[in-house]
Amino acid sequence: MSTFVDVGKIIGVVGATGAVGAEMVDVLSRRDFPVKELKLFASKRSAGKKISTPYGEIVIEEFTVEKAREMDIVFLAVSGSFALEYARKIGEHDGPVVIDNSSAFRYDPTVSLVIPEINPEMVKGQKLISNPNCTTAIAAVALWPIHKKYGLKKVIVSSYQASSGAGAEGMEELRKGTKAILANEKCPQKVFAYPLAFNVIPHIDKFLENDYTKEEMKVAWETRKIFGIKNDDDCKISVTAVRVPTLRAHAEAITIETAEDILPSDVRELLKNSPGVDIVDDPAKLEYPMPLNASTKFNVECGRIRQSLVFGKKGLDLFVCGDQLLKGAALNAVQIAEVL
Amino acid sequence: MSTFVDVGKIIGVVGATGAVGAEMVDVLSRRDFPVKELKLFASKRSAGKKISTPYGEIVIEEFTVEKAREMDIVFLAVSGSFALEYARKIGEHDGPVVIDNSSAFRYDPTVSLVIPEINPEMVKGQKLISNPNCTTAIAAVALWPIHKKYGLKKVIVSSYQASSGAGAEGMEELRKGTKAILANEKCPQKVFAYPLAFNVIPHIDKFLENDYTKEEMKVAWETRKIFGIKNDDDCKISVTAVRVPTLRAHAEAITIETAEDILPSDVRELLKNSPGVDIVDDPAKLEYPMPLNASTKFNVECGRIRQSLVFGKKGLDLFVCGDQLLKGAALNAVQIAEVL
Repeated sequence: MSTFVDVGKIIGVVGATGAVGAEMVDVLSRRDFPVKELKLFASKRSAGKKISTPYGEIVIEEFTVEKAREMDIVFLAVSGSFALEYARKIGEHDGPVVIDNSSAFRYDPTVSLVIPEINPEMVKGQKLISNPNCTTAIAAVALWPIHKKYGLKKVIVSSYQASSGAGAEGMEELRKGTKAILANEKCPQKVFAYPLAFNVIPHIDKFLENDYTKEEMKVAWETRKIFGIKNDDDCKISVTAVRVPTLRAHAEAITIETAEDILPSDVRELLKNSPGVDIVDDPAKLEYPMPLNASTKFNVECGRIRQSLVFGKKGLDLFVCGDQLLKGAALNAVQIAEVL
Repeated sequence: MSTFVDVGKIIGVVGATGAVGAEMVDVLSRRDFPVKELKLFASKRSAGKKISTPYGEIVIEEFTVEKAREMDIVFLAVSGSFALEYARKIGEHDGPVVIDNSSAFRYDPTVSLVIPEINPEMVKGQKLISNPNCTTAIAAVALWPIHKKYGLKKVIVSSYQASSGAGAEGMEELRKGTKAILANEKCPQKVFAYPLAFNVIPHIDKFLENDYTKEEMKVAWETRKIFGIKNDDDCKISVTAVRVPTLRAHAEAITIETAEDILPSDVRELLKNSPGVDIVDDPAKLEYPMPLNASTKFNVECGRIRQSLVFGKKGLDLFVCGDQLLKGAALNAVQIAEVL
């Protein structure tokens, strides 16, 4: 069991009963973050409930701005509308630093969007920091070292996103729906637009005017913001976001065109020495990234690295897989707190 | 129940106990193919077994070249090595026309590789005709009208391939594996390299020297052959083939660059009037291609058609889904027989 330390931070997790909130508590412990005190907040409905954590049993408290303001660092694992309403209020004047996992502030030019392996300097002096979208974070840790060395010109992504991207309810709906289909029974949908069991759904988040979904555009917008690319034309990004019947860990098939000539063997070496990435790329030994192995792992797996048949010497195809509850959410948020 | 007709063909299906063989018999009936007599062949092990078909109960016979030579048309739903050994022997001299579903002859320049919506003229005078790979066939019926009108320059495909691409055993292993995981039990793998339940596996068929899999290269090689594109550089194709935990119907996220300017609305109209394709593309009504709906359908569903953010006016992103046991195998084979 993890223990609280005297010299540490008072941490609050808002939305502690959700999939990401629970992972945040777990990651604080797994990374030995110096926690002096831990408060778990949720809605009135969950207040009073005891939940078991690596720090022992903790009673959920009803969220109020006043209570949150007594923390040193507040993690928000809540909806965008909740974050919009409360994130600034929690932090204003001498309030705590707020790390928000929702998309509410990600595209606000005054708010830093941070992946600590990439742009840790953007944390400095900020009272509100945004955590990127899960699909973005997983691709970005693998693509950033490539971008720095070879310059990304075009990025084409097709995603294989797990049910837990829609929270604990998403996982539960997939489990129940799968059991129902195997038993030839019907199962009502609430989380996903269609049954996800034994199906794939090319629809995550709402559709926008350009017929891309918001999830697809998030990857483009956020990757450029985190990489510091000001002009869309300098790095063109197109995404197809697809929900698949997995529980944890998003996978992504990525094709890139680079400004400079690029070789698969060089990129394997480069990424071996890059933080947050594990090279899992030995076809002869049947080693390639998969949700089966990437789930619950901190690092993102990167493999299937090969010279692009479309972009030739200036292009690669690759496959990444990362636990979207971890690098895609809770881990990245705790890493931001570590930079603080 | 379907009935045999006096004026029709004597049909033999070799590999009748497999997933594709069973679908071939079903498709002959669904399309009212004029069948005078139907013989089902399999290995010695299955000989004598009665199977129920739309034409009534039929007794499986052990395959011999002599028996197969008494047919008018022979469908081979068998392995590549079996096809290599017997396909030519069945057809030689005055033997029947052989339609082979394996990859054995697809890359032989003397053998026609046919999708009837695209190159039916290649059937003429042939005694041995190859049926394309399932992933190829599903993408090709949607891409061919686009290629004819706008000229394909680049094609990038990420696939979401169903367990039945590995036959009836693949489906069974996914079902059993899923039950085992839900019950917290272990389940041995035979068909797939890793458990497929709640996982995705970026590995189909064997790895080649360029680190692409043979499945990935098949789509590139076969699409160019069927489209009559002689020079690889005229149409560059790169594929990532991924097995996902679905039972039937492969899906594919496709990004294309074209020689001419191309508009999503024009392509929707074009494909509405193209054979073998259904436009399923109304995000406001939550209409997009999915295995859930494409399974057991003859036509390939095409949707999520949008202007490419990477190739701009000369590019599109789209999503296709088709039943790979049908358009990807049995249906296409029967359509070839119809052209005969």
